[in-house]
Amino acid sequence: MAARTKYVLDEADLPDRWYNIVPDLPEPPPPPLHPGTREPIGPEDLAPLFPRALIAQEVTGESYVEIPEEVREVYRLWRPSPLYRARRLEKALGTPARLYYKYEGVSPVGSHKPNTAVPQAFYNAAEGVTRLTTETGAGQWGSALAFACAQFGLDCEVWQVRASYDQKPYRKLMMETFGATVHPSPSELTASGRAILAADPRSPGSLGIAISEAVEQAAADPSARYALGSVLNHVLLHQTVIGEEALRQFALAGDTPDLIVGCTGGGSNFGGLAFPFLREKLAGRMNPVIRAVEPAACPSLTRGTYAYDFGDTAGLTPLLKMHTLGHEFVPDPIHAGGLRYHGMSPLLSHIFELGLFEAVAIGQRECFAAGVRFARAEGIIPAPEPTHALAACVREALRCKETGEEKAILTALCGHAHLDLPAYGAYLVGEMTDHDLSEEALTAALATLP
Amino acid sequence: MAARTKYVLDEADLPDRWYNIVPDLPEPPPPPLHPGTREPIGPEDLAPLFPRALIAQEVTGESYVEIPEEVREVYRLWRPSPLYRARRLEKALGTPARLYYKYEGVSPVGSHKPNTAVPQAFYNAAEGVTRLTTETGAGQWGSALAFACAQFGLDCEVWQVRASYDQKPYRKLMMETFGATVHPSPSELTASGRAILAADPRSPGSLGIAISEAVEQAAADPSARYALGSVLNHVLLHQTVIGEEALRQFALAGDTPDLIVGCTGGGSNFGGLAFPFLREKLAGRMNPVIRAVEPAACPSLTRGTYAYDFGDTAGLTPLLKMHTLGHEFVPDPIHAGGLRYHGMSPLLSHIFELGLFEAVAIGQRECFAAGVRFARAEGIIPAPEPTHALAACVREALRCKETGEEKAILTALCGHAHLDLPAYGAYLVGEMTDHDLSEEALTAALATLP
Repeated sequence: MAARTKYVLDEADLPDRWYNIVPDLPEPPPPPLHPGTREPIGPEDLAPLFPRALIAQEVTGESYVEIPEEVREVYRLWRPSPLYRARRLEKALGTPARLYYKYEGVSPVGSHKPNTAVPQAFYNAAEGVTRLTTETGAGQWGSALAFACAQFGLDCEVWQVRASYDQKPYRKLMMETFGATVHPSPSELTASGRAILAADPRSPGSLGIAISEAVEQAAADPSARYALGSVLNHVLLHQTVIGEEALRQFALAGDTPDLIVGCTGGGSNFGGLAFPFLREKLAGRMNPVIRAVEPAACPSLTRGTYAYDFGDTAGLTPLLKMHTLGHEFVPDPIHAGGLRYHGMSPLLSHIFELGLFEAVAIGQRECFAAGVRFARAEGIIPAPEPTHALAACVREALRCKETGEEKAILTALCGHAHLDLPAYGAYLVGEMTDHDLSEEALTAALATLP
Repeated sequence: MAARTKYVLDEADLPDRWYNIVPDLPEPPPPPLHPGTREPIGPEDLAPLFPRALIAQEVTGESYVEIPEEVREVYRLWRPSPLYRARRLEKALGTPARLYYKYEGVSPVGSHKPNTAVPQAFYNAAEGVTRLTTETGAGQWGSALAFACAQFGLDCEVWQVRASYDQKPYRKLMMETFGATVHPSPSELTASGRAILAADPRSPGSLGIAISEAVEQAAADPSARYALGSVLNHVLLHQTVIGEEALRQFALAGDTPDLIVGCTGGGSNFGGLAFPFLREKLAGRMNPVIRAVEPAACPSLTRGTYAYDFGDTAGLTPLLKMHTLGHEFVPDPIHAGGLRYHGMSPLLSHIFELGLFEAVAIGQRECFAAGVRFARAEGIIPAPEPTHALAACVREALRCKETGEEKAILTALCGHAHLDLPAYGAYLVGEMTDHDLSEEALTAALATLP
């Protein structure tokens, strides 16, 4: 029989619990602080925005959280997701390395985001919430939440950054097909939106403004809550289904990863893949190098400061201890919209400080070159975000070609590029430029820290 | 354990041969005729356009054709494809029927088309061809061939109908990312294109013109051949992997289909699903009703004539005995571009005449209503083409709700709608109209028969 290409788990192998890495760490992450008192915030501070179950998950000390059967039932629409051995890419690169990718593009919206959108919708519905609000940029997260809300009969209201709303209509149409209402942000529907429009009627919006609008609407309506697609502990918790499945699939393959690579924006894709492997590493059962890859245009881990900062541009959130470029930093418009965030998940930031993984920043042209190479070999056109991880994989595979090392390399291919094809178009005609962050811009951005 | 949602086969269960229905039919289909002599054409007439292996498959009398290992190796990137039980849609409809769908949207380009693009590229490469030409409308077929050519190192040159080339750039970008060259058609590169442009410099093009350009280029270059994405026997042969896998998955489910439903344009998706089940039916091992669904705007099976006609608008192909609306018929611009073909596969047309399946035509608004219903329940937004089959499934499921019948219904969900979202947008804002073919237009179209 031919060598295997795909490692597919049976539905029965769908994980029945999420993994919480916090109790396994040598020390706990620093708590979020109230911006006024600078005292640690309590669950009651979050109650207007999140359901009790998710607040409990945000601060839990348990190692595992059971996945409700209602969530598993929806996960089964696409999970377990496949683990691929990239044999055709290996051959194209001429490398002795074994390349594996865990493919999350099989989800209904083409990315890993539904892994957390589904439980967030479930817990809200279970506590009697009837409406969820959120923000979205290019629309990956908004699509995921719209899909999840349709599954649990919730109204879904999305504030989408106006520039994306106008220029990238496909994701808006996807959200609407799933039954969501999508507003361009800034909008006349909120005080925050009206204030921005009064100052600049033609404002293109920003993720920070859209967050303010979604939070304001949720806080004002007792039957509504707010949902966030990355950064927070409970979001990373939900994403650990990726790594738990990949562990089982590596066992099927009879292999062990020497290197694990993931792209980082807010950190949920990377954490979701890496945490279960990090558990094995901390327990001494395997010893992979773990590497985060961020865009050179938005290098929070490699060039940011580890400090308390706001999660949003407007300064409405609690203060979070994280690697940050400053909450007023606006990254250049690179195509990997999902990686354009000024900060990094506080939990991942803490683990980075503990020295448990390393980080590298790569410019987008090298990333798209890797994306095209991958597409022509493997047939899947990767979303702009995971091309960052693929570029690091290609670097390592070529290094192995020189040294003869037969490393097993695992990456998370967190989405496909069906709705990002214009970015490939720009790359192919040579109209893509890198946007490496300059020293001057970095200094200016860090000066905005609270 | 919870009831199953997905039936996933192991790589080892990937079919190792395609099924040819012809020897199992009570009588053979009428042969293609030379348009000049009206005598049956021979293999040598096709040699300038197709490689020998595919011409042999076109006329083979064997029941099975072995799938080369090189083709199976590429199939494994996404095959076996999943069979789903649509439990959430059943619940939403309140039907006692059991709904199953075989999902081909997991392929690299999001449709069933690579099932034939891959072997076509393989056989051409094996015979020393270095370049394939083809036409494409909206771009599903062109994307599939571009992907397949990248896998076998072939140059791929696609003539895309100019209206689509200009208005729907995403598929063009997908083809280019896979390394293909895409020309708007009519182009200045061919005599056929130049003739059209001389008469009308702003011609929006048509599939018929694009076929002429691709055929002309292939015929003029000894190292090039032409590839077609539907209609022909060898294309339907390759697509039988769909039905063969579905048969095994039904065995896994411990169920037997009472009704099989597929959409029909050129017929390759429908034939691919139905033929293996039809084999079982002809052998008396099961007795499903088999139903083709076509658009009311282009009803070749339900309202066309069974006669010899040209396969293309320009009249360059052999004469094919098929259900046709006349080769000069131009269907209204419905959103299911893949079903806008004046004729029907000669093999399927013959089987329809034998009374082995039935057909129904449905208007596109009912189809998109079913598509939205399906998307909100199952999470997958169906391409416009398979919404036709889904509309027929919904009709039957609601009939079962009235009668209490617990029918098992199987359909082929041959693709997703990521690149067709504007069609859903038009539907959701009420701007979609049906385009049922009028009696006058039908009479006029049939008058063009040769």
